[in-house]
Amino acid sequence: MSLSRRLAAEGLGSLLLAATVVGSGVMAVRLAGGNVAIALLANTAATVAVLATLIALLAPVSGAHFNPAVSLVEASRGSLSWGDTAAYVLVQVLGCCLGAILAHAMFDLPWLQTSAHSRTGPSQWLAEAVATFGLVLVVLGHRRPQDAAWMVAAWIGAAYWFTASTSFANPAITIARSLSNTFSGIRPADVTGFIIAQLAGALLALVVARWLFRTEHSISIERSATGPTVAAPRGLESRADHS
Amino acid sequence: MSLSRRLAAEGLGSLLLAATVVGSGVMAVRLAGGNVAIALLANTAATVAVLATLIALLAPVSGAHFNPAVSLVEASRGSLSWGDTAAYVLVQVLGCCLGAILAHAMFDLPWLQTSAHSRTGPSQWLAEAVATFGLVLVVLGHRRPQDAAWMVAAWIGAAYWFTASTSFANPAITIARSLSNTFSGIRPADVTGFIIAQLAGALLALVVARWLFRTEHSISIERSATGPTVAAPRGLESRADHS
Amino acid sequence: MSLSRRLAAEGLGSLLLAATVVGSGVMAVRLAGGNVAIALLANTAATVAVLATLIALLAPVSGAHFNPAVSLVEASRGSLSWGDTAAYVLVQVLGCCLGAILAHAMFDLPWLQTSAHSRTGPSQWLAEAVATFGLVLVVLGHRRPQDAAWMVAAWIGAAYWFTASTSFANPAITIARSLSNTFSGIRPADVTGFIIAQLAGALLALVVARWLFRTEHSISIERSATGPTVAAPRGLESRADHS
Amino acid sequence: MSLSRRLAAEGLGSLLLAATVVGSGVMAVRLAGGNVAIALLANTAATVAVLATLIALLAPVSGAHFNPAVSLVEASRGSLSWGDTAAYVLVQVLGCCLGAILAHAMFDLPWLQTSAHSRTGPSQWLAEAVATFGLVLVVLGHRRPQDAAWMVAAWIGAAYWFTASTSFANPAITIARSLSNTFSGIRPADVTGFIIAQLAGALLALVVARWLFRTEHSISIERSATGPTVAAPRGLESRADHS
Repeated sequence: MSLSRRLAAEGLGSLLLAATVVGSGVMAVRLAGGNVAIALLANTAATVAVLATLIALLAPVSGAHFNPAVSLVEASRGSLSWGDTAAYVLVQVLGCCLGAILAHAMFDLPWLQTSAHSRTGPSQWLAEAVATFGLVLVVLGHRRPQDAAWMVAAWIGAAYWFTASTSFANPAITIARSLSNTFSGIRPADVTGFIIAQLAGALLALVVARWLFRTEHSISIERSATGPTVAAPRGLESRADHS
Repeated sequence: MSLSRRLAAEGLGSLLLAATVVGSGVMAVRLAGGNVAIALLANTAATVAVLATLIALLAPVSGAHFNPAVSLVEASRGSLSWGDTAAYVLVQVLGCCLGAILAHAMFDLPWLQTSAHSRTGPSQWLAEAVATFGLVLVVLGHRRPQDAAWMVAAWIGAAYWFTASTSFANPAITIARSLSNTFSGIRPADVTGFIIAQLAGALLALVVARWLFRTEHSISIERSATGPTVAAPRGLESRADHS
Repeated sequence: MSLSRRLAAEGLGSLLLAATVVGSGVMAVRLAGGNVAIALLANTAATVAVLATLIALLAPVSGAHFNPAVSLVEASRGSLSWGDTAAYVLVQVLGCCLGAILAHAMFDLPWLQTSAHSRTGPSQWLAEAVATFGLVLVVLGHRRPQDAAWMVAAWIGAAYWFTASTSFANPAITIARSLSNTFSGIRPADVTGFIIAQLAGALLALVVARWLFRTEHSISIERSATGPTVAAPRGLESRADHS
Repeated sequence: MSLSRRLAAEGLGSLLLAATVVGSGVMAVRLAGGNVAIALLANTAATVAVLATLIALLAPVSGAHFNPAVSLVEASRGSLSWGDTAAYVLVQVLGCCLGAILAHAMFDLPWLQTSAHSRTGPSQWLAEAVATFGLVLVVLGHRRPQDAAWMVAAWIGAAYWFTASTSFANPAITIARSLSNTFSGIRPADVTGFIIAQLAGALLALVVARWLFRTEHSISIERSATGPTVAAPRGLESRADHS
């Protein structure tokens, strides 16, 4: 695939993902009559559904990262060049920000906003690290490419509820959500803490996955006899076609 | 498949889809005690479930469009003759209208109604264009025929919440919903704006998909050696068996 | 499979299905604080989840009908002998009744009850006919055996909301629900009307499916060259391994 | 796989599973405004999503039991040595307890707690036996390894609602939940009764599954000709790669 098409896929997917996160949050709060659990249930369902769809749709084009933490992990294990990674991250951030603006436009809100939603402190950072750790573990550890869509989406859906931060788990989405003073927003001042925690969680997952999912030598040989799989030099098979 | 059976499948699927959209909306409002978010959650869940089921059931017969925007896109890329397309659109509209009437009959409501639900304005039209853009992108871009059912349903489910219009994304359903003065209705006067926005979104998706999912020459040849797939002359493989 | 094991599978599946329908209704009403939509959402989710699981688990043993309407349809197209069908129906009814009693036992309710929940009238009967029509259409029309589980469950889940009767769609469950004076109950006097409507819907689906999903002669030959599928003499392929 | 990696997978999976059960319960109660049904819906959805993801992710490493009842069943049918089983159970209990503590840390709660939530009595024990019976039946009876993830998760999700105990169905989780005085807690004094009921349900499932899913001799031979499956001496095929 040409880089331009891969970047278009990353940008478009990031845009639609962020529009869903922000837009469904606005819709849910408008309709939920003050019950925040119902609003978060709707927000979760919409995010899970669109994330699975976008991964299945765009993974064959770009890998469907939509997430700088994932792109950096792929770069660090040699699945993506560092130059491509920089371009990926750029369009992911740009796409997510445009997605927030698109959501505002659809809901008749001011296009440019700044969130006043405070999200900070050690327990929030721990939550973001846990959420991103699990996400990257799923990305690196799933066996069948066609399972990436539902596994990533299901993890994020669960993490919306069991992590105290509602699982941003994505630096590009975090930046975009600082531009929306709605249900899903985060104060610009709190963005850096979230991103550091996310990258720490991703790094931990990379270390754990290399050991936990390392292909045994004998298994690799057995497999390579029946298909194109070979033992990757750094312990993890390189799979370009997942998220 | 004979045209009569394909038209029966399109008509039956459109009927059951519209009956679900309208009927579950009536049931949800009756039970939700005024909480519109809970009503829309139930309406979304029922629509998603029936849409996935009907696509998996009827795609092998007719392609399971149930949607004039999809049939027109298939015609414009040469997957459906224009004559068949006209017949498809006719039975889709007829089927959806009968589905709304069936829902009314099941819920002891007047069979023939006219909606008074105002849905208009640029932000609503933008929402419809976004919803239909994503739907057609999924239809044209998914790789495995068996994934069409869940991907189309998941996209529509997400779009019920993240687009301000609750994602009609279907001219036939839009017309049918103007015949129901219930939760899911739309004023007859607002139908034309919605349909124009839907067709604009579908057209944009057709253009984007041709470039984004274009099969590379070398890949096409490799594939054609192992199966019946050949490179389509206009850049997209023709797949008759999805929605 | 021996008949005794097939009957055990039908009985066990029917028991767990009815226990779920009745039990989750009791739990949902206890917790929902008077919001019937939330109660029905929980009731629907539990039913859908257990139905899909039981079909996937027990279809290889007995076909996983759990439903006299389905067994009668299978008998009428020659997939099940009439003697086996009588035994299937008997254990389905017995299993469902035991399931209702099990639910009562788990929730500290009187084991034997009679429902006072009135469900009658032409619109309710129409709803039951529609719900069972769709169920049998899915049973007869789905192409891949492994899709039966989710398709049947998704149809029932949607029909809980879009049919006015909340989709019993099963004579054995209908009888069992008359033995529970809880959320999911039905007055004994109303059982006959429901069962007649269900069988009418099933019969209509049998007629429609024979024409709609009839295997074309040329396609049958093409398929039989690559696998064990042959054109069934009565127009529908016989598939013993679905629900 | 080396034992150390298998134990790491069991411990990590148990930790994330318990963190989800406890954490999503805390979040749900905080947001649900007193409506317990909404809280349990969110708790159920998060548990189902993370359970399916963890099984698909870790089953190839350790079998993804996360549950002493399952490990004991695997040991008793010869799929796991008794020494490995002891180690599995130890890390499952330890992992679940750490998971509860992690949830407390993320939600700014005291790390060490004791539950005051009374859950006892014959109907609760019956419910735990039913829930664990179904879980083990799914573990032993499913046919395709890739179906274990959704089938186990769907069963547990349904059992959260149709069993009066909300389906702990897992001795390790039961112990861990006694360490959390939150929505999902259980009094330490009530733990033993639950575990006895769970083991009774698991034992019953083992007996039923041996008879119900026994591979017929002729089928076993047919299968062994096309793959690595051989008829297990005790009537059930040994499948190491499921939960």
